[in-house]
Amino acid sequence: MSQYVSRLRSRPHGQFPGPSRLRLPGVPRRPRRVAMLSVHTSPLHQPGTGDAGGMNVYIVELARKLAALNIEVEIFTRATTGTLPPAVELAPGVLVRHVDAGPYEGLAKEELPAQLCAFTHGVMQAWAGHRPGYYDLVHSHYWLSGHVGWLAAERWGVPLVHAMHTMAKVKNAALAVGDTPEPAARVIGETQIVRAADRLIANTAEESDELVRHYEADPGKVAVVHPGVNLERFRPLAPGGADADDGGVAASRAAARARLGLPQDAVIPLFAGRIQPLKAPDILLRATAALLDEDPSLRSRLVVPVVGGPSGSGLTKPEGLQKLAARLGIADLVQFRPPVGQERLADWYRAASVLVMPSYSESFGLVAIEAQACGTPVVAAAVGGLPVAVRDGISGFLVAGHDPADYARALRRFVADPELSARMGHEAARHAQSFGWDTAAAATGDVYTAAMQERRRHLRSLHG
Amino acid sequence: MSQYVSRLRSRPHGQFPGPSRLRLPGVPRRPRRVAMLSVHTSPLHQPGTGDAGGMNVYIVELARKLAALNIEVEIFTRATTGTLPPAVELAPGVLVRHVDAGPYEGLAKEELPAQLCAFTHGVMQAWAGHRPGYYDLVHSHYWLSGHVGWLAAERWGVPLVHAMHTMAKVKNAALAVGDTPEPAARVIGETQIVRAADRLIANTAEESDELVRHYEADPGKVAVVHPGVNLERFRPLAPGGADADDGGVAASRAAARARLGLPQDAVIPLFAGRIQPLKAPDILLRATAALLDEDPSLRSRLVVPVVGGPSGSGLTKPEGLQKLAARLGIADLVQFRPPVGQERLADWYRAASVLVMPSYSESFGLVAIEAQACGTPVVAAAVGGLPVAVRDGISGFLVAGHDPADYARALRRFVADPELSARMGHEAARHAQSFGWDTAAAATGDVYTAAMQERRRHLRSLHG
Repeated sequence: MSQYVSRLRSRPHGQFPGPSRLRLPGVPRRPRRVAMLSVHTSPLHQPGTGDAGGMNVYIVELARKLAALNIEVEIFTRATTGTLPPAVELAPGVLVRHVDAGPYEGLAKEELPAQLCAFTHGVMQAWAGHRPGYYDLVHSHYWLSGHVGWLAAERWGVPLVHAMHTMAKVKNAALAVGDTPEPAARVIGETQIVRAADRLIANTAEESDELVRHYEADPGKVAVVHPGVNLERFRPLAPGGADADDGGVAASRAAARARLGLPQDAVIPLFAGRIQPLKAPDILLRATAALLDEDPSLRSRLVVPVVGGPSGSGLTKPEGLQKLAARLGIADLVQFRPPVGQERLADWYRAASVLVMPSYSESFGLVAIEAQACGTPVVAAAVGGLPVAVRDGISGFLVAGHDPADYARALRRFVADPELSARMGHEAARHAQSFGWDTAAAATGDVYTAAMQERRRHLRSLHG
Repeated sequence: MSQYVSRLRSRPHGQFPGPSRLRLPGVPRRPRRVAMLSVHTSPLHQPGTGDAGGMNVYIVELARKLAALNIEVEIFTRATTGTLPPAVELAPGVLVRHVDAGPYEGLAKEELPAQLCAFTHGVMQAWAGHRPGYYDLVHSHYWLSGHVGWLAAERWGVPLVHAMHTMAKVKNAALAVGDTPEPAARVIGETQIVRAADRLIANTAEESDELVRHYEADPGKVAVVHPGVNLERFRPLAPGGADADDGGVAASRAAARARLGLPQDAVIPLFAGRIQPLKAPDILLRATAALLDEDPSLRSRLVVPVVGGPSGSGLTKPEGLQKLAARLGIADLVQFRPPVGQERLADWYRAASVLVMPSYSESFGLVAIEAQACGTPVVAAAVGGLPVAVRDGISGFLVAGHDPADYARALRRFVADPELSARMGHEAARHAQSFGWDTAAAATGDVYTAAMQERRRHLRSLHG
């Protein structure tokens, strides 16, 4: 049983309602069933492709753990293929509902605003077959879903909890060269949803500040819930080596390298994520070139994997990155790999000496936690949630700004000290333990409960 | 009392429900109150500017006449200024409701799809204060409103009647040089609303065909209702001259020219409408130049007024048209006038020898009826509804294609026969009488009644 439930049970003046759904007066009620909205990206999609990224992982893991807390989750997403049934069980207590709204293929994210009424209509149809009060709460992800959630929550008379994941004003304030600014329509849409939501879930304190600063969010409505990582999947995988000083990290690394066919003695700085200007994989390439400029003998000891596909909205194409590698004279060192499944991704994390995240903006930076959970330190730009995700000097290094020379300097420490990667990786794996999805789901459940409680209070005050 | 009501009263097996709202079984019920949706353009705006055109006039006149038939109308439109109250009475029985959805200014039509959920929310708020069944029917105009109507009709359990006004696929099939094709999002949105609506109102039989051909509309759902013109406003205005052979048209023309300071003996071909490639005002300029090429002596007898402003979506700027006039050597003949009010516009129609409409596409061509109602013949491209609006050889001339020489040939007949304009104008005014709003509103009311009847039948069949 999760810590969330036990915490509720131990409340001095409360009692957990239990499976009988008996409602005692004054006891905060958790939702039984949540309608989760993810219009533009399906939880069934492969992260690292197209528009599917950290948000997909977030929704899947959160839903699983909420279900484990007896909160059923139905995830509504736009149908992008005719081959899947209208409803698919993702896990016990987690249903994915495919909503018909526009053609399966060829609809870009920019064209989705025109489909929000159609999507809302599909959500209403799915709901119409149920008794009133079927959904206790709406939790929407990204502003497009937020607008659907606005209407759904109003119609069902339930609270709306919204998570932005990324924000146009934040993105636009830290735009990389070659990236297109987010349109005004999104800024307006986000502003409206901030006003309409009963609760906003921010990934980090910084995101919470941004909601207040950029979107005039009522600070009392914003709750910070650090997203979790799947700690069962992302962990060092050492054949009986967990007793070592480094928690088995070195053995885990060696095994992963063997599985991936990577050299055991190489320094391997890894980039993992969508290839787009915002994620700045080019900075890792330039930093590698800078390392080689100083010490050409490193050429035989460096492997630089770039794991990920192009993003729908990004301007940097993998070809462009390949050309850059050639221009920098490091084409032989850089390995471009298409997006991989979560299991395989964990192996790439384990195999790397260090994960490099030179991003211009990250609301949380889930991959930083995933890599650390696998026992891999992280060199990251000190933006967004990364200063929370990475313990500077302990589980990795934070770099101010985006000068490739600064990233080269951080990488040089791993070159100079072959043990550093395993030592820091051990700390990284420990640090990552506090970012599990049990914790995240329990905290999210608390936000739900608070939202429902406040709504009931509000209704009571209306009716005298 | 309107002809519609008396027609209902004379039904052998029916009885008009009357103001007591008594419902007799088997009697088709008309709606008492209609929610009319016009998201992107307000009925209070000046036609001929920005996005306001024939559709604004259509909605205002239809609403007035529906109200006269005891069908109350509430028109929902997006608030584009903070200076107007949330609800404004446009006429007895006609309320305009301003819905907050996005900023008042700076929101282009292309950005409106992202505001449809917000708009729907505003409509629901206005409705929430009323008893259930407050609106009997939703009538949406243009696809953007259609998507809101889809949700509103579903929520209220009432029929949705939709009017396209213009269609992306039709526009794209007849694109003028320099005009931007309509986006896929609109095509998809239109296709959805065609499927969702209980009834589609087409302006012409051709529009009805297009709905079936391009959008696979169920022919049984499409009703053709010719839009009306305001025959009280648009009519020949002759000081006691209605007894003349030409119905007073010549006297009306002379008086209007005096009011506008135009020469009495000039041949005056008029362009009236938004200045955009689709409306092709440039063809009138080129035809004028062709006339002069043949007979330079006409220069002293020609005046070419262009009345209208630039369109938000059009690429042809008035400056471009002015440059074209200069290049053609007719800058001295062309008078550019900004959009004018309906009263003043009627004077421009009356003053003209002929209205010229070289449009590439017109779903109905309301101005052709307005000009004829004022006693002015029309030379028009044989596209869209214009072959219905103009009786070829009687109330004007239809031209196949867009060759300026063909338009010059038609204009030459008015030059050669100074009486032709008044003779044809007299026929034109008679022809226009069948396009009054009384008729249009009564026919629209019939569509409402049919939609409500079918929905009741459908509900009865569901409940045994």
